[in-house]
Amino acid sequence: MTTKKLGAGVTRTDRKLMDGRTIRYYDTNGQKREVIDQRNPETQPGIGELRLDVQTNEWVVIAAHRQDRVFLPPKELNPLTASSPGNLTEIPESDYEVVVFDNRSPSLRQPERELKLPRNLDFATPTFPAAGKCEVVCFTSDYESSFKDLTDRQIRTVLEAWRDRVAELSSETYIEYIAPFENRGEEVGVTLSHPHGQIYAYPYLPPRTERMLQVAKSHRERTGRVLQSDLLEREIKDGVRIVSENSEWIAFVPFAARYPFEIHVLPKRSVPDLVALDQTACDAFTPIAREVLSKLDSVFDMKMAYIAAWHQAPVRVGREYLQLHWQITSVRRAPGKLKYLAGSESAFGSFMMDLAPEQSANLLRDAKI
Amino acid sequence: MTTKKLGAGVTRTDRKLMDGRTIRYYDTNGQKREVIDQRNPETQPGIGELRLDVQTNEWVVIAAHRQDRVFLPPKELNPLTASSPGNLTEIPESDYEVVVFDNRSPSLRQPERELKLPRNLDFATPTFPAAGKCEVVCFTSDYESSFKDLTDRQIRTVLEAWRDRVAELSSETYIEYIAPFENRGEEVGVTLSHPHGQIYAYPYLPPRTERMLQVAKSHRERTGRVLQSDLLEREIKDGVRIVSENSEWIAFVPFAARYPFEIHVLPKRSVPDLVALDQTACDAFTPIAREVLSKLDSVFDMKMAYIAAWHQAPVRVGREYLQLHWQITSVRRAPGKLKYLAGSESAFGSFMMDLAPEQSANLLRDAKI
Repeated sequence: MTTKKLGAGVTRTDRKLMDGRTIRYYDTNGQKREVIDQRNPETQPGIGELRLDVQTNEWVVIAAHRQDRVFLPPKELNPLTASSPGNLTEIPESDYEVVVFDNRSPSLRQPERELKLPRNLDFATPTFPAAGKCEVVCFTSDYESSFKDLTDRQIRTVLEAWRDRVAELSSETYIEYIAPFENRGEEVGVTLSHPHGQIYAYPYLPPRTERMLQVAKSHRERTGRVLQSDLLEREIKDGVRIVSENSEWIAFVPFAARYPFEIHVLPKRSVPDLVALDQTACDAFTPIAREVLSKLDSVFDMKMAYIAAWHQAPVRVGREYLQLHWQITSVRRAPGKLKYLAGSESAFGSFMMDLAPEQSANLLRDAKI
Repeated sequence: MTTKKLGAGVTRTDRKLMDGRTIRYYDTNGQKREVIDQRNPETQPGIGELRLDVQTNEWVVIAAHRQDRVFLPPKELNPLTASSPGNLTEIPESDYEVVVFDNRSPSLRQPERELKLPRNLDFATPTFPAAGKCEVVCFTSDYESSFKDLTDRQIRTVLEAWRDRVAELSSETYIEYIAPFENRGEEVGVTLSHPHGQIYAYPYLPPRTERMLQVAKSHRERTGRVLQSDLLEREIKDGVRIVSENSEWIAFVPFAARYPFEIHVLPKRSVPDLVALDQTACDAFTPIAREVLSKLDSVFDMKMAYIAAWHQAPVRVGREYLQLHWQITSVRRAPGKLKYLAGSESAFGSFMMDLAPEQSANLLRDAKI
């Protein structure tokens, strides 16, 4: 057991689970975390395979061993809540604030030996083990809660946990990109409704990030300017798509949104990643995060399905071109209607938006919370 | 009214619908198509807007006027069947074989004046009207049928209709890429269950196509070889992912499949697009198309949701690099389980596959039809 002091009065205590995975408790009251995982040890599933899709030069992770993962268990068997005598969960303690543990069925996992993928991919590129990390972030032990229902203190602790994980994962040589995200709602395939997020740490730049890097780099070379700053400037000038703002952060529906509800939340002072946020920016994140997610649920007065993803600079390359921001997207376009990624979006990557970004921003701005 | 002779004994007769849209009847018995659309004329919705997503340099179509489109109407109001006294549909005739008509709520439509998008996109790129064409292809008047249930004759007529549309749309100067596809199943958001497909004709290269073009071009420059031929050669050599084959076509699960069920169907002699297929290849398409779609429904003995999309060479550029093939993808990974595009896929473009492509190919190959 190790305990470490982080920012905002948060301490982290590490423990091992029955199968050797690590669980990290993020606490604000110096709690002792000494309970031992009582479950029977089980074999960890094998590692997946990275295969190159030669039509697009993009890695695909083949993680066939995950097919049997837990699927919407009944509430009394929720594996993400604190343990109780009748339900020994992923969290051995009988209470917790925020925990991050290694995913039991990871798509990507720590490789047995040093791995470095080639940067030049082509037809002859061999396959590789699916190295990386998949972690689960539990936002609270209360399974009926939501990110937006967390207290200031809780959101601040989640943010500190994210920052800690990004800092630590960045030091692993096999990791090139770290993506903390939350999938919420059965509509986006969430198999456990307990409020939680995930962290994927990839051994390559994910295709969308690679594209964003290429575009931001070319913008800088042509104009000498930072793309995200120009984008922010335009949104402030246009004004009509801004949803919320405070001294440190701004939230808007982007000019060319792809989803009926899409909110980008940017720190006003650009930083490459979560680790680089200063204490003022960290503290100011809490109210705007709660506000935009509350507004999203308020538009149709229902729990909205969403994906909330932190985009950051890659760990090693292009750190001067890409900056931190939080993208929240929802496929819900009306109470009984979802946007599906069908032929145009899925097969050809071309997005069709049914709701004008300005309409969507109006709905969000006017939503009573 | 004009009538035109196409291949395989198919004739095409054009008529106008009440609002000026064109409907094209593809027939095999020289039918006269003289029935006039009896519905009240209605105003055509406006044209959408193309906005550049400056983070990715990709066009997004903002088609806000489509929000009210028809959504799963009851069977007796099916707008895609032949007209009857109680239900005046999109097809004025009381029977039909195959029809293609302009979509009533198109995301992309014919522009009022000549449009040419700039090839170099950057932050300063202005917005443009969402020029292009969206057409609906009805495979049969029988709403309970499916593509796989069509007769040889019907599939051959659908193919001839696709080829005719690609040939004609290719001559429009504002069109750069033509994508005939079928979305099937409510799981992929299909709002009308009548067996039908769509054709999207884009004024730009869709992002995935642009990427495929870039990769195929670079492969050619580096090796002097055609990427799709190398890919086909590897699949034949590996053998283990082949699902079906005849003298002219081959169907396999690709080495780096992204979906639990993904089948690529390639003509053995490469051609750039549907128009370039010869009669032998056209005739041989029927049995393999029926076979692979039947196998797909047979794996779990249920109607599978799928997207079946024709990938072709672009209309104007890179015709020597990209070749025709048919990609069928299904998000169904088990009878009660779908694959969702959540955080990793949707926010970062990185795909995680739960089923090994070889397993998936085995299931398809062994499926009894």
